[in-house]
Amino acid sequence: MLLKTLLIAGTASATCLHNLSRFKRAEGEVKVGTFGYDGLIGPLNWASLAEENQVCKSGKTQSPINILDAEVTLATEKPTLDIPEQKVEFENLGTTIEVVVNGTTKFGGTDFRLKQFHMHTPSEHRINDEYYPLEVHMVHEGVSDTSSLAVISILFQLSTGASNPLLSGLQPHLKAIAEPGTKTEIESLDFASVIEHVQTTGLFQYNGSLTTPPCAEGITFLIAKQPLDIDVATYNEIKSIVKFNSRYSQNKLGEANLIDVASKAGTAEQFDAPTAVAKAATEDEAAAAAEPEPTPTKGQTVTISELHGKPTHLVGVVVRR
Amino acid sequence: MLLKTLLIAGTASATCLHNLSRFKRAEGEVKVGTFGYDGLIGPLNWASLAEENQVCKSGKTQSPINILDAEVTLATEKPTLDIPEQKVEFENLGTTIEVVVNGTTKFGGTDFRLKQFHMHTPSEHRINDEYYPLEVHMVHEGVSDTSSLAVISILFQLSTGASNPLLSGLQPHLKAIAEPGTKTEIESLDFASVIEHVQTTGLFQYNGSLTTPPCAEGITFLIAKQPLDIDVATYNEIKSIVKFNSRYSQNKLGEANLIDVASKAGTAEQFDAPTAVAKAATEDEAAAAAEPEPTPTKGQTVTISELHGKPTHLVGVVVRR
Repeated sequence: MLLKTLLIAGTASATCLHNLSRFKRAEGEVKVGTFGYDGLIGPLNWASLAEENQVCKSGKTQSPINILDAEVTLATEKPTLDIPEQKVEFENLGTTIEVVVNGTTKFGGTDFRLKQFHMHTPSEHRINDEYYPLEVHMVHEGVSDTSSLAVISILFQLSTGASNPLLSGLQPHLKAIAEPGTKTEIESLDFASVIEHVQTTGLFQYNGSLTTPPCAEGITFLIAKQPLDIDVATYNEIKSIVKFNSRYSQNKLGEANLIDVASKAGTAEQFDAPTAVAKAATEDEAAAAAEPEPTPTKGQTVTISELHGKPTHLVGVVVRR
Repeated sequence: MLLKTLLIAGTASATCLHNLSRFKRAEGEVKVGTFGYDGLIGPLNWASLAEENQVCKSGKTQSPINILDAEVTLATEKPTLDIPEQKVEFENLGTTIEVVVNGTTKFGGTDFRLKQFHMHTPSEHRINDEYYPLEVHMVHEGVSDTSSLAVISILFQLSTGASNPLLSGLQPHLKAIAEPGTKTEIESLDFASVIEHVQTTGLFQYNGSLTTPPCAEGITFLIAKQPLDIDVATYNEIKSIVKFNSRYSQNKLGEANLIDVASKAGTAEQFDAPTAVAKAATEDEAAAAAEPEPTPTKGQTVTISELHGKPTHLVGVVVRR
C-alpha cells in the first residue's frame, strides 16, 4: 500500500538518504534526486530536506542570480578546456538529465576535472533580466582540492536552424532516458563548438552556490554571455523529459537570503523593499535627472515630472550598488 | 542624481503608489508595474510592497500551481466567448505585455466581460510538472459583480510551423512596444482559433489567485489542457521584451503558503517535508509494492527492495491526497 503510493509519486531513491555526496555514484546505478521543484520538496523547502541544506535558506551568495551587466564582471582570463573523445553515460536523475564525462579545465591557475554536465529548463541564470529556454552546467572539481568546485554555464536560445552539435549529438538518445532512473551509453559527443565558445566568448564570473540541495556556497560560476542554438524539436523533447528544474532567482550577491526576506515581509522587521520605482520617460526628464539632487529620505516629498506634473510621495527607491 | 539612478533601474511608475486597482487606467497612459521578478521587488517579497499584498505570503489557494491530472479536474461545461472585431491597444506594462480588448464570456451561468489579455514567459502554470514557454491570461470580470474574476489561460508550445493567428497578428507590433510604458494600436486581431480552442479543448478548472500583487484569491482559473503554437521568432522577440515574468509554483491548493513553509524550514516548527521518496524500479518490486502494508510511522524501519536489498531507514514519504 505504502509502496504503491510511492510508486505513483516516486521520482527519487531512498539511497540518497545516507549518501548525498554530489558526485559519488554506485556502480551501474542511476541515483534519482530526492528534491523537487514544487510543494514541500520544492526550492522554498529544501532546507527541510536535510540538515546540510540549511544554507539554501540562509546563504547570502546563493545561485542562480539575475546577472546584470553593471553588477557582474567578465572573467579577465579564459579557461582552457580539454575533453578527450570518449564513450559517455547519459542519465536521467529525475531532477535533471546528465552526461558523465571526463575532461580537464585550467582556470585561474587551478586545474579542474570535468565530472559531468547537466541541464536546466528553463535557464536558472538570467542575463539583464532575460531568461533562456535551456542552461547547461559543466561541473568541475579541483584536481588537488576536490572541494573546490567550478561550473561553466552555457545558455541556449531557440533557433530555426540546427542545434549546436553537442545537443544534436544527444538528441537521438533522449528517448532512451525518458524515465527517471534510466541511462544509456553514447559512443562519442562533439564538444568542439562548446569548447570554442567557452574559450572565446565573454564569461560572467561570480562566486555563488550549487543551485540544488545542499546549495553549498563557494562555487565559481563562469557563464557565457552569448547563448548557443537549440532547435525546436530538441527543446520540446528535453522539456517533456525534464519538465521543469529551475530554482527561482536568488537575491543580489551578499544580500539577505530571500527566504529570510520573505519570512519578514509585511511585518515590522521587513526589509526595506522598494514600493515604487520612478522612471523618467522623456529626454527632458533624463536631462533633469542628470542634475545632482540630494539623496531623498523615506517619507520625503520628491517631484517626479512624469506623473501628471504633480508632486508624488516616494516611499521607496531602487538603486544600483 | 537620484533620478539618474532611477532611470537606470526604472521599470515602474510612482503613480501606482496611490492606485493599485487592477483594471483602472488613466486616459492615454500606460501604467508600469511597481513589482518585479527578483530581489526585494520579487515574488518572495511582494507582501512588503503594499498592505493589500499580505495574501501573497499567507494565502492557501495561490496561483500559479503545478496542475496534476489527479488533483485538478476538467470543467464540466465549456465557456462561450464572443470577441467582436475591434481596434485594440497593445501595451508594455514593464511586468507584462497586454492587449486591452472587450468581449463577453458566459461560464457557469455567469456573464463575464473580457477586459484584457496579457502574457507570461515562461508559463506560470505547469501541467503534470511540465512548463511551457508562454502562457496567455485572458482576464474577465463579472458583469453584475465586478469583483468576480475569471482567467482563461492558454499555454503555447514552440513549433517549427506558424504561430497561432492571434500571436502572428501581434508579432509585427512587438517592436512598437519594446520599452516599458509604450503602447500601440492594432486595427484588428484574429481571435477565432483561440475561441475555438477554448470552447472545444479540455479546461482544467480551479479556484486560485491573481499571480501578481495583490495576489487576491477567489479567482476562477480555466486552463486549456492542450497548448497552441508559437514560432521561434515570435517567442524570442516576446522573451526579449518581457525578459521573465513567471511567479514560482505555489503550494498545493488548500495547503500552507510556501513562504510560511519556507520560514519554518530547518526549525523545530518545520512542515513535515518528505526527505526521501522511494521508487520501485522493477516489475517484481512493483508487484511487491501492490501488496497491502501497514502505513509506516516516522522513524520506523521499512524494507525497500530496490536498495541493494538492505533495509533502509525511511524518514519521510510523499503521498498523494
